[in-house]
Amino acid sequence: MSLIAMHPPMARRAALLRPPASHGPAALDQQGLVDLADAQPDALGLPAQELAEATRRVLGRHAGKALLPGPCRGIAQLREWVAAHLEGQGLHVGARQVLVTAGTRQSLDLLGKVLLDPSSPLLVQRPTSSAALRAFAPYAPRMIGLRCDEQGPLPQAFAAALPGARMAYVQSCFSSPAAQTLTPERAEQLVAALQEAPCWLVEDDACAGLWLDAPVAAGLLARGAPHGVRVGSFSRVLFPGISLGWVAGSAALIDRLALARDAADHPPCALNQWVLLEMLRGPALQGALPGLRRIYRDRRDAMLDSLRRHMPDGVSWTRPGGGLFVWLTLPRCLDAQELVGPARRRGVAILPGGAFDVGAGGCATFGNCWECRFADDADAAAPARNTVRLSYASAGPQAIELGVQRFAAVVREAVERVSRAPLARLGGVSRA
Amino acid sequence: MSLIAMHPPMARRAALLRPPASHGPAALDQQGLVDLADAQPDALGLPAQELAEATRRVLGRHAGKALLPGPCRGIAQLREWVAAHLEGQGLHVGARQVLVTAGTRQSLDLLGKVLLDPSSPLLVQRPTSSAALRAFAPYAPRMIGLRCDEQGPLPQAFAAALPGARMAYVQSCFSSPAAQTLTPERAEQLVAALQEAPCWLVEDDACAGLWLDAPVAAGLLARGAPHGVRVGSFSRVLFPGISLGWVAGSAALIDRLALARDAADHPPCALNQWVLLEMLRGPALQGALPGLRRIYRDRRDAMLDSLRRHMPDGVSWTRPGGGLFVWLTLPRCLDAQELVGPARRRGVAILPGGAFDVGAGGCATFGNCWECRFADDADAAAPARNTVRLSYASAGPQAIELGVQRFAAVVREAVERVSRAPLARLGGVSRA
Repeated sequence: MSLIAMHPPMARRAALLRPPASHGPAALDQQGLVDLADAQPDALGLPAQELAEATRRVLGRHAGKALLPGPCRGIAQLREWVAAHLEGQGLHVGARQVLVTAGTRQSLDLLGKVLLDPSSPLLVQRPTSSAALRAFAPYAPRMIGLRCDEQGPLPQAFAAALPGARMAYVQSCFSSPAAQTLTPERAEQLVAALQEAPCWLVEDDACAGLWLDAPVAAGLLARGAPHGVRVGSFSRVLFPGISLGWVAGSAALIDRLALARDAADHPPCALNQWVLLEMLRGPALQGALPGLRRIYRDRRDAMLDSLRRHMPDGVSWTRPGGGLFVWLTLPRCLDAQELVGPARRRGVAILPGGAFDVGAGGCATFGNCWECRFADDADAAAPARNTVRLSYASAGPQAIELGVQRFAAVVREAVERVSRAPLARLGGVSRA
Repeated sequence: MSLIAMHPPMARRAALLRPPASHGPAALDQQGLVDLADAQPDALGLPAQELAEATRRVLGRHAGKALLPGPCRGIAQLREWVAAHLEGQGLHVGARQVLVTAGTRQSLDLLGKVLLDPSSPLLVQRPTSSAALRAFAPYAPRMIGLRCDEQGPLPQAFAAALPGARMAYVQSCFSSPAAQTLTPERAEQLVAALQEAPCWLVEDDACAGLWLDAPVAAGLLARGAPHGVRVGSFSRVLFPGISLGWVAGSAALIDRLALARDAADHPPCALNQWVLLEMLRGPALQGALPGLRRIYRDRRDAMLDSLRRHMPDGVSWTRPGGGLFVWLTLPRCLDAQELVGPARRRGVAILPGGAFDVGAGGCATFGNCWECRFADDADAAAPARNTVRLSYASAGPQAIELGVQRFAAVVREAVERVSRAPLARLGGVSRA
């Protein structure tokens, strides 16, 4: 086939597609590099032997069912498992209100497809999941960033932004990347606002299972938020190579999502579903979870401890109760993007926070249709250029200590450089 | 969660989603029913034991790689396998020009997403794959049906429709459902037309491996059609439960599809890819194929033989050289949709052809934006209401004989009823 440089036009939305913020560990082949950028969990602790055993049992027991495509919505037993799991969290849905998907990204893509017209107002936390921004981007919504604290969206900002919004995308616990977690009181305030203004709520609890200190409280849907779905994943930590997730909630929306799924993808892999179900029902999963929690708790503690010891004044960070990330805020005179290269040369990979913030370099609509409702509040409207996501997913405690130490040195140097800069530069800095 | 009937608005494209033409064998629980409607292959002949063995080997050898997500484009070894496979068919692409997907539906969805704006002209065969129509529908293209014979699109019609078209979706061999297969001469004519008018070619060869009499000749891209991709599947027959497919061709398009895939889905299941690769490299696959061909050849022959013996005059059908379907054309006085109920009551499930034809009930844009370029040719413009797809995928030869016999009785009765109808009715009929 001849390769011709000029080609026929593509769809306008093709220009809205962007590469991921992090390219995964495979992209980093630097000797001795500490990877604090990537979110991919370690294979360490994954129950490989149990998985092989489960596969053998499933194929031996009902090969016919496992080798043929199952129902479009997912096998009934797995949907029932999800419904029972949600019941335990106070959310009452029938198995018919559960759709099995190929994981969170597919869930979010389908939600974007079914709910978002071009320029539909879409509320997101600041910061929010870069994967969610990328999934929604091709549908060209108008992203509206919500002011947040460590408990999630500020109630007043949320209530003010809701009228006319098409969708609110909320991570109710251990939000990626800032580990915002709704308290019961905050959750009640947000639910009250949602009852006032009709809007589709997409509640992402992909990280709920990744609590490190204590399990999380009930989310927004479980507290009575109308019109919405919860998005969950089986793959986040235990089965990253077997991509399966689910959406559960509003029957009207699940029905449409099921149609969209069926048009855009074959039924979820039957074999994987049966194997997963075998694992969920057996002791392997429950057995593996405490070990995994211990691994990530040790890593988080190592990171927090290293940050405390090495970071200069003026740097602040979150203390996540779950998830895989610490969210750093650098002095406002620094641009995290400019630290990536120096950090890499010192042997540590970090991820600037821009990709997690609407309006920043990672804005899902790339500035084409973003409009901040708080434009009179320059602080909130400005893209966060001085933030960094540090991941404790893949590096062990000792490597984390080394990586944080290296990055702290880079930050110190950068602060010193800025403080030596002439006044003209400082003028620019004070606005940043 | 309370279920409230009224809900906030969804995206406009949500109204373009339709259920599949066939609901799969699970929907049919009628005792003694012969299923000639569904396309799902039999589990019969699937190498279950080999699959379990391959999974055990893969997990034993490199559990880490198999349990973590692989690269977004698919694992390199599998992409290299596809490139070598295509090389054998005369299509020269590098592994970088191959994208592994979750199967044909995802391939087509991504192509729609990246290439189709609302009202983009999209050329399709008449009839064409209902799955393709459903995958493209949410992107609201303007479907343009191409006049075809058993060798595919008529060259003159194709050349006339090409200027201004955004995409041409062509199944070059054993097209679903009518088993159209390009001859070398026809293929050369279509390639010449594509070289004249720039248009993205999407060549679907999902059924190429399902030849029953003889392997197929090279397709359009292999003969030099510019600007296009080939869409293939590993799942059609051998691995229907493990959904994996690929798109290969234009580097510029593959790059965009990879971005779209990465935004909308996690990397293709690593474990499944390694297991598939293990199967592709081993003897199990090559060993299973001749047996599967024999099974489907026997069923096809049984169906053709039964049709010849039972169908009344005025009914014609295809003689497929591959694939899983016979395409029936009933007398023009009959509406296939009206025969579904009577056939079901006699114990046979059939699928009316409307879902495979743009402009008919199954039109992917549901009449909202369909516009036939041959509107002056009433014959070509009319939706095909008198067609039926009969599948020999899931029923054995004896059941097929029984099913065809039953359906033939229904057709005979319908013809008799119409011929006894008063003149007023006949007037309506002659226009049908």
